[in-house]
Amino acid sequence: MKKSEFEYLLRNTSGNSKKDIATREDDFPQWYQDVIVAADLAENGPSKGSMIIKPYGYAIWEAIKSELDERIRAAGVPNMYFPMFIPESLLHKEANHIEGFAPEVAVVTHAGGKELEEKLIVRPTSETIIYDSFSHWIQSYRDLPLMINQWANVVRWELRPRMFLRTTEFLWQEGHTAHSTELEADTFARAMLTMYQNVAENVMAIAVTAGEKSERERFAGAAKTYTLEPMMQDGKALQFATSHNLGDTFAKAFDVNFSAEDGSTQPVWQTSWGMSTRSIGGLIMSHSDDKGLVLPPLLAPLKVVITTVGGDNAEVKTAAQKIANTIAETVLVDDRDISPGEKFFAHEKRGIPIRIEIGPRDLENNQVVMVLRDTGEKKTVVINDVAKFISPELAAMQQRLYAQSQTRLSENTVDCSSPEEAIAAIKNSKFALASFEVTAELETSLKKDHGITVRCYPFEKDAKTLLAKAY
Amino acid sequence: MKKSEFEYLLRNTSGNSKKDIATREDDFPQWYQDVIVAADLAENGPSKGSMIIKPYGYAIWEAIKSELDERIRAAGVPNMYFPMFIPESLLHKEANHIEGFAPEVAVVTHAGGKELEEKLIVRPTSETIIYDSFSHWIQSYRDLPLMINQWANVVRWELRPRMFLRTTEFLWQEGHTAHSTELEADTFARAMLTMYQNVAENVMAIAVTAGEKSERERFAGAAKTYTLEPMMQDGKALQFATSHNLGDTFAKAFDVNFSAEDGSTQPVWQTSWGMSTRSIGGLIMSHSDDKGLVLPPLLAPLKVVITTVGGDNAEVKTAAQKIANTIAETVLVDDRDISPGEKFFAHEKRGIPIRIEIGPRDLENNQVVMVLRDTGEKKTVVINDVAKFISPELAAMQQRLYAQSQTRLSENTVDCSSPEEAIAAIKNSKFALASFEVTAELETSLKKDHGITVRCYPFEKDAKTLLAKAY
Repeated sequence: MKKSEFEYLLRNTSGNSKKDIATREDDFPQWYQDVIVAADLAENGPSKGSMIIKPYGYAIWEAIKSELDERIRAAGVPNMYFPMFIPESLLHKEANHIEGFAPEVAVVTHAGGKELEEKLIVRPTSETIIYDSFSHWIQSYRDLPLMINQWANVVRWELRPRMFLRTTEFLWQEGHTAHSTELEADTFARAMLTMYQNVAENVMAIAVTAGEKSERERFAGAAKTYTLEPMMQDGKALQFATSHNLGDTFAKAFDVNFSAEDGSTQPVWQTSWGMSTRSIGGLIMSHSDDKGLVLPPLLAPLKVVITTVGGDNAEVKTAAQKIANTIAETVLVDDRDISPGEKFFAHEKRGIPIRIEIGPRDLENNQVVMVLRDTGEKKTVVINDVAKFISPELAAMQQRLYAQSQTRLSENTVDCSSPEEAIAAIKNSKFALASFEVTAELETSLKKDHGITVRCYPFEKDAKTLLAKAY
Repeated sequence: MKKSEFEYLLRNTSGNSKKDIATREDDFPQWYQDVIVAADLAENGPSKGSMIIKPYGYAIWEAIKSELDERIRAAGVPNMYFPMFIPESLLHKEANHIEGFAPEVAVVTHAGGKELEEKLIVRPTSETIIYDSFSHWIQSYRDLPLMINQWANVVRWELRPRMFLRTTEFLWQEGHTAHSTELEADTFARAMLTMYQNVAENVMAIAVTAGEKSERERFAGAAKTYTLEPMMQDGKALQFATSHNLGDTFAKAFDVNFSAEDGSTQPVWQTSWGMSTRSIGGLIMSHSDDKGLVLPPLLAPLKVVITTVGGDNAEVKTAAQKIANTIAETVLVDDRDISPGEKFFAHEKRGIPIRIEIGPRDLENNQVVMVLRDTGEKKTVVINDVAKFISPELAAMQQRLYAQSQTRLSENTVDCSSPEEAIAAIKNSKFALASFEVTAELETSLKKDHGITVRCYPFEKDAKTLLAKAY
């Protein structure tokens, strides 16, 4: 049994109050908010669009971060840290980039009691400040590839904020690389998308459609943007993570050149790629149900809760503690003298994968009841067998959640041969795989008239276009 | 052998160029800058006072962070995350606090293309925004103690910036707790100082004097500030970490009240405590020498480098790789065909604790030369014994560095019975332990006329005052 830092969950704090959760069918947006509040993942901060990530929500982010960080290092990319204030002149160096981000930035005009000579932009993303440094660091082909990553907070002003999905400040990692050839850069950008896909599928249990963005939806300044698009339970898409082949656009704007082996001076070819706390919104909308949060076991801060039932009984409490001691995963013992229903509700809405119930009669029979959060299935297990069942049950749950997400995506992605057919399908909560040509004009009118966007040109569906509504 | 993400160290990148290092005796401040540049830990960012933490420097911060994070969790304090923008009105709620921080803050006045109705302050520290939430979260004694920690970037405008020591933006953790009694809060603030002392001594190998700050040096708004004051190699102090007993000052300003068991409504008693990237400045000035960075092995990103000598020899390269494979710690094999001197210099200035040299003659004799970074001592070791020597050698080096720091502190802290004696001692690079009374007037004139400050009233030296110059 690992020591848990989540003992505070056993308190009835005001942030942890009983709250009804809307059903997904009745009101999906309200259900989403309710799940977050009921699980005490986050709440609104004091300034508009800001969010306080509470300990339970932050622990989920830390688990995601740890899985992603390990993969980034394994790709040979070390972490570092750049300042969050970008001098205005740097942000303006690449025309498309500033056009894309200017409406969203927060600006520091005063500091140290004085008006600043040059305004400082709170980073909305760090291409500009990082590539300014790259231009100093890169001289020769021997300096390439140059690859770095940073974990940071970024700010993008949001008009219609929603917790996790759109907050003025969010947390993310942003990777940045420079290569000597266009092909190497593109290959690396694709490799990072594959890394994100691995995290989506194997860690977050979320099935995705991988593809390339349309010109309209591309990152500001990129040559190509690659994306992962999972389907939420309401049939909408959520951009899970993106990886950009930046071409030599930023290299030219920031003079990031290298002397090649043949002695010529050439611009580098760059990539950037990021994944953020936004993905937690996708996690919630992929797996949770009308009872509250459902978590893939790999990301659950607590894997098991042991709840005593049948009143204040010292022997039962001792037995609960003894069972906890046999379990290798993080486990919480809830032996509070409150009604079992109240306890079950508290742990269900938090998405703790396995609940073990033990009462006086169970103890007499040398058994417990094991309840699985995703299916609600109950199993009677002999006390001495509990420990050995935990790990396989968690693995099976992880697999079930992924299979469910995969089925949702594949069964609800439908081929459409006309815009009308696509609009109807999307209205019916589907993803439309358009075999017709989606011209720039059609793309504009679909967005304007129906709120439908080109999600991507899927890698695996030659010459088709994925259309959907999206978060 | 663990896979190293530091293979890039083997490149001759422009950020890793050969650079002479000033001696500590000739020019200590220049030496400090040179060590940072030579080890490629950090460099100045584009806006004044900002700093780019480069991969090798960031890896040291990650190692410190990991050790600290583990201890914070073990104290039962979970991580969470608050917004970095504090509405101006919140920052102004506690009079002493705003008086202390107003001159240092950066202010966001525009965002999303508009002037903001209320200015947003980029957090210089987060008491105000966090305690605003505490006032909502805390109702009853059952909600106490409430304890949280966050890892974050903060901004304090600096007029005379220096890398790591004083940068406009820095990284830190800040812990915040609320308790039901004054005694419990004070005890917890002291416990967190002890935790920092444990990190200083056992991880960073830095001896410290622990004590309480004078009223003048106290954190803005605190009832008591506890501090750790190590001695740098030039005899100056550096505030390593602080822990504050905030009394009920913020509770009263932010209405953080609870209903006690007796039914009465009372303000909570609070603490806050932090440690930052500033500590890396202390690490450098504690251990490094005229050859460059020296790192306590526990914090060294790479523990061992194996360098081939004697030219391009395939058998030697193979042997180097074989030895690396037997070593459990992070190890880099440097088999580049450049002069041994150049390689030794590169790894010395990075502070890699153990260098193993192997050449054709060594291979013939079935041995290598092991060189210890701190002492420069060379040992001849039989190849098959290398692996088993690494761990004890690293542990011994960690211990030596701490002992050296401890000796420096104790031998150079001198009892002084008059201000004149103290001024003379400090001029002579000592810490002065004043047995005379340091009145508020004397404290002011010592600072104004001599740049000497009250570092603390040491816990272990009853009724004495520690005076020194400080970073």
